[in-house]
Amino acid sequence: MSDLPKSVEINEEGPREGFQFEKGTIPTARKIELIDALSLTGLKQIQVASFVNPKNVPGWADADEVVARFARKPGVRYTALWLNSKGFERALAAGRLDVQGSISLTASETFLKRNQNRDFAQNLQAQREIIALYKRHGVTVERASIMAAFGCNFEGDVPIQKVLGLIDDILELARENELAIKTLSLADTMAWATPLTIKRMLGAVRERHSSLRLGLHLHDTRGMGIANALAGLEMGVDLFDAAVAGLGGCPFAAHKGAAGNVCTEDLVFMLHEMGVETGVDLPKLIDAAELAEEIVGHPLPGSIKVGGPLDRLRARPH
Amino acid sequence: MSDLPKSVEINEEGPREGFQFEKGTIPTARKIELIDALSLTGLKQIQVASFVNPKNVPGWADADEVVARFARKPGVRYTALWLNSKGFERALAAGRLDVQGSISLTASETFLKRNQNRDFAQNLQAQREIIALYKRHGVTVERASIMAAFGCNFEGDVPIQKVLGLIDDILELARENELAIKTLSLADTMAWATPLTIKRMLGAVRERHSSLRLGLHLHDTRGMGIANALAGLEMGVDLFDAAVAGLGGCPFAAHKGAAGNVCTEDLVFMLHEMGVETGVDLPKLIDAAELAEEIVGHPLPGSIKVGGPLDRLRARPH
Repeated sequence: MSDLPKSVEINEEGPREGFQFEKGTIPTARKIELIDALSLTGLKQIQVASFVNPKNVPGWADADEVVARFARKPGVRYTALWLNSKGFERALAAGRLDVQGSISLTASETFLKRNQNRDFAQNLQAQREIIALYKRHGVTVERASIMAAFGCNFEGDVPIQKVLGLIDDILELARENELAIKTLSLADTMAWATPLTIKRMLGAVRERHSSLRLGLHLHDTRGMGIANALAGLEMGVDLFDAAVAGLGGCPFAAHKGAAGNVCTEDLVFMLHEMGVETGVDLPKLIDAAELAEEIVGHPLPGSIKVGGPLDRLRARPH
Repeated sequence: MSDLPKSVEINEEGPREGFQFEKGTIPTARKIELIDALSLTGLKQIQVASFVNPKNVPGWADADEVVARFARKPGVRYTALWLNSKGFERALAAGRLDVQGSISLTASETFLKRNQNRDFAQNLQAQREIIALYKRHGVTVERASIMAAFGCNFEGDVPIQKVLGLIDDILELARENELAIKTLSLADTMAWATPLTIKRMLGAVRERHSSLRLGLHLHDTRGMGIANALAGLEMGVDLFDAAVAGLGGCPFAAHKGAAGNVCTEDLVFMLHEMGVETGVDLPKLIDAAELAEEIVGHPLPGSIKVGGPLDRLRARPH
């Protein structure tokens, strides 16, 4: 365990992932309340909204209003998701987001078609177009991600070679457009990864691309989220997406049990207990998790908000 | 990951742990139904009942009847829990259990007092007495366990030296009584362990006692169960207690959120996906988990019974 990173950066995606997934309408004011609570926790990056077609994702029909009204805290980066130029232009027009560009490929063409209605070739072309748009607006593009990088409910296991091929595509897009991609995030969108496949995949990627910083986006549908994060940590990963209280899930995974991202406060608990810094105040994050649960009105999967952290128990007189 | 064990033995504790913990009366026939369902899964050891004082654990007032009536399947070991000679004699009198003796110490004296109403010295004396009883009945004693081995809600973190001292006590008891202890199980009774403390503790124990087979009993109260099991596996542990569907919890932990053992089917899923054999039929185990949930009448924490295994998805035509 001696090669664990000293500190880890967490990209909080609970608001974006969670409010996209929950049934029924969550009032705009309550979405903002959660974002503002998360801003107080010490998290450095929060994805606050999804600028997607409200016909497909009605839960984010109020993205513009949420982004207009949450309270920006200095030192926190506020980001949003978009899947096309229209979404990007909405995010940019808001004028209150830390807009960064990224290249996004998907390892399963079937999933890509269902999720974004594009085949591989159409998606590469879409990436070219959005990169051109980023460049016109002077938006930096230093990140890339690969969705469904470990397996797909429609196509099965994703071979390592396929992911390596997609990384080549990403680097070719970067060369064409004179971009310097610094970070690559691998997303286990449909929860096929296990600690073994995480280690094998990351090992193969590191072997070929030693200078890329690697991140993980881990869904917890099969209960492997924290163990997969541990496997990533042991491979030196220091960048994780996570969702407060385990909010979220994927509405396109054809899977009623599709769970959200790995739970932020459970991940932070493990990291702090293992001596890895995050800059997050765990009790405040647990407060935000309890607020998230109250807002959605049903139990959310995180464990630490129920089991409790250890520091208070340590502080008791023995 | 190349040093993962080739196969792992699972001691299913769901019935014993779960029915001790659930509120309200679960009919004897339904307890037997779950045990019989578990017998069909390929699990090699099932702890079917707790012979404890019904005043303390009313959920197991019917232990004798459960043990008299479940269907023994050849090749499966059926065990029970007891904490004193009276419980042991009830288990023996049943005539249908694979009765094995064990030495059980606890790393927290406060927890020991609350759980069993004994201090350290009284517990050592109680172990001497029960070992004498085992010897009179010709019952083998090859196992030992240490409860609260990683931390205690009342006493805080448990230092490695304390556990090493308790192992010395166990080996001294074994010498006094000419016993050959082959297996030592470390129990994270109150869910204080993280992958780091698991690795450090197991490393220190292995260093001093290389011939002892090590087992882990992991509670999932803080969501670390599967990650802790992974850490144990990476240290060569090939023996795990687990509870189907994540049944259970500890009624003496002074902790309303105290969750049960690591979930058997989630553990089996991870093991099989990583190429580690268990002899368990995962779909049949998921059926048993669904039955457990139906019997207790509320959702239980396991993930795979909701998320589903991957083999069926792999078998779809792509």
